[in-house]
Amino acid sequence: MNMKQHDSIRAVVWRDDSLFLLDQRILPQQQQFIELRNARDTANAIRDMVVRGAPAIGIAAAYGVVLAAREHYRNSPQSWKKQIQIDLKILAESRPTAVNLFWALENMQQCIANIESDPFPILLKQAEKIYQDDIAANYTMGRLGASLINNDGRAVLTHCNTGSLATGGFGTALGVIRQSFIDKKISAVYADETRPWLQGARLTAWELVQDKIPVTLLCEGAAASLMRQGKVSWVIVGSDRIAANGDVANKIGTYSLAVNARHHGVKFMVVAPTTTVDMNIASGEQIPIEQRATDEVLACGGKRIAAEGAAAWNPAFDVTPAELVDVIITENGIVQNPTLQKMQDMMRGKPV
Amino acid sequence: MNMKQHDSIRAVVWRDDSLFLLDQRILPQQQQFIELRNARDTANAIRDMVVRGAPAIGIAAAYGVVLAAREHYRNSPQSWKKQIQIDLKILAESRPTAVNLFWALENMQQCIANIESDPFPILLKQAEKIYQDDIAANYTMGRLGASLINNDGRAVLTHCNTGSLATGGFGTALGVIRQSFIDKKISAVYADETRPWLQGARLTAWELVQDKIPVTLLCEGAAASLMRQGKVSWVIVGSDRIAANGDVANKIGTYSLAVNARHHGVKFMVVAPTTTVDMNIASGEQIPIEQRATDEVLACGGKRIAAEGAAAWNPAFDVTPAELVDVIITENGIVQNPTLQKMQDMMRGKPV
Repeated sequence: MNMKQHDSIRAVVWRDDSLFLLDQRILPQQQQFIELRNARDTANAIRDMVVRGAPAIGIAAAYGVVLAAREHYRNSPQSWKKQIQIDLKILAESRPTAVNLFWALENMQQCIANIESDPFPILLKQAEKIYQDDIAANYTMGRLGASLINNDGRAVLTHCNTGSLATGGFGTALGVIRQSFIDKKISAVYADETRPWLQGARLTAWELVQDKIPVTLLCEGAAASLMRQGKVSWVIVGSDRIAANGDVANKIGTYSLAVNARHHGVKFMVVAPTTTVDMNIASGEQIPIEQRATDEVLACGGKRIAAEGAAAWNPAFDVTPAELVDVIITENGIVQNPTLQKMQDMMRGKPV
Repeated sequence: MNMKQHDSIRAVVWRDDSLFLLDQRILPQQQQFIELRNARDTANAIRDMVVRGAPAIGIAAAYGVVLAAREHYRNSPQSWKKQIQIDLKILAESRPTAVNLFWALENMQQCIANIESDPFPILLKQAEKIYQDDIAANYTMGRLGASLINNDGRAVLTHCNTGSLATGGFGTALGVIRQSFIDKKISAVYADETRPWLQGARLTAWELVQDKIPVTLLCEGAAASLMRQGKVSWVIVGSDRIAANGDVANKIGTYSLAVNARHHGVKFMVVAPTTTVDMNIASGEQIPIEQRATDEVLACGGKRIAAEGAAAWNPAFDVTPAELVDVIITENGIVQNPTLQKMQDMMRGKPV
């Protein structure tokens, strides 16, 4: 694998003092960047899924704060810190589940508190740091996760997209998969297509094809058969928020995989940076699960499918209880069979 | 519910000495019948999923034999019984998993053996009998299945389409659901959209909307969350082939539901006529599972979705082992916790 290939995929680009987001709604057929000029547009882009994936959402929001600071400081160098608060609120309301968003906004907010001059260069540097720290965390997690994979001839199964498009670069679960492929521990990947947004079919397959990692798509309904046939040794997924006890919120469909993995003796790995861990909530029951528009289910490929009069239930995420999680990987380390104590130790940087 | 409403949906229609199949590939947006003139065209229609659903495939194939007999008897009243064999073979090769197809062809073959005059009226009568027997079986199964449902305020979950479109009329799993609604034991139905063909979104929702039974669609990945939230008391599905030990082949995604149902304490019911039971095979391992074109997964709503270079795995069915099946309903009775002995007794018409 040419490392430069996946390095060339960037969901979030800051260039010529402007924020550009790769429009992930139209990938892979079209590769088109959208320029964002202020925080409101950035919030809309997050809500509309121009950018998605918990770490990438956090990075995009951080740059949204940079845009807001520039605008408000230009308009009013005296009161920009007050005026930017509404933008921070708008960004925070763009999506509810991924805690990376709130973490990034809080991180930028703390930076704002200490600024006493033009905020633009300082906040831009902070956003870049969040971006670069995420990439560094991905590479660390890739190595840690891959260390657990044995070359037993079986493939791994992943869900949704957790690659360069969902992060600063390299990826969380997909980073572990990439590293495992580089290390010759796996030679093939199965990817759930991931209805209703088809991130697996559209994004994960696209990333893996570019890396020349053999990828086979399947409908979510087929994953149980795949496990029964012994085709996969691990399910490897990302997360949008991990509670203090190790309960994991992730893209809808993840929990079903976890139940099936346990039933079939397949191991279940969650890969997410510490920015995804929310030690302020005790368990997954407290994670707000976003309900999205029913049209996402009632239509498919942009075409209305279901009969008029049919309703739809469209939770964007589900929660996998810690007892079904074999291992959580963060850049701080490997947490086997997660518990509150182990999560606390890991977050403090103690060996787990 | 107006019983005439679902009675008006017919997948297979014999009219003016011609066979018409409702083209289920374009429902519900278009309601269009295709006229079939011979057995080859009927086999192609089955393969291409103009008609689908195990009982409906069997019925369509029986009429295909009628068309074949008329053609060959006209051409050669002396040797039609020989010439029809190739058509029976072509029909048998149209799809591999649903045993109703082979049952219907065998049934027609036995009828052919005894014919010594113009076969058309005799075989037409036999096809009509297969059709009417299936409808009668559906109503019986509807009553038997509904007798097991308690009105506990919860909904039921179904997968794929098992209604009038998949059978002679009324339906197998959907027949139980219809009867349970009529009996006021349930007031709402959840239906998996059922990728890749979206039979749930396109067909089941359409049937239930016409019956004014409230239906909520969900992506397969959301079913586990639905169960965890206690929203459903039963998963009710059909089958394409049931082995002698009670293992059940059904639409891909069924097995995942069964694993999740057991994990969550949700009951799992399979509804299928005895024509779906294959006592000649000991277990589900011997059921041939059709692999369909990868384009069905790589595309969605007729549009290519996945990146070029991605592969797909597209088994059309999966096998749920008998130990995950709480009850099998046939027109012969209710089989709780199926075993070989119980299945044998049921097939012989003994009380189980």
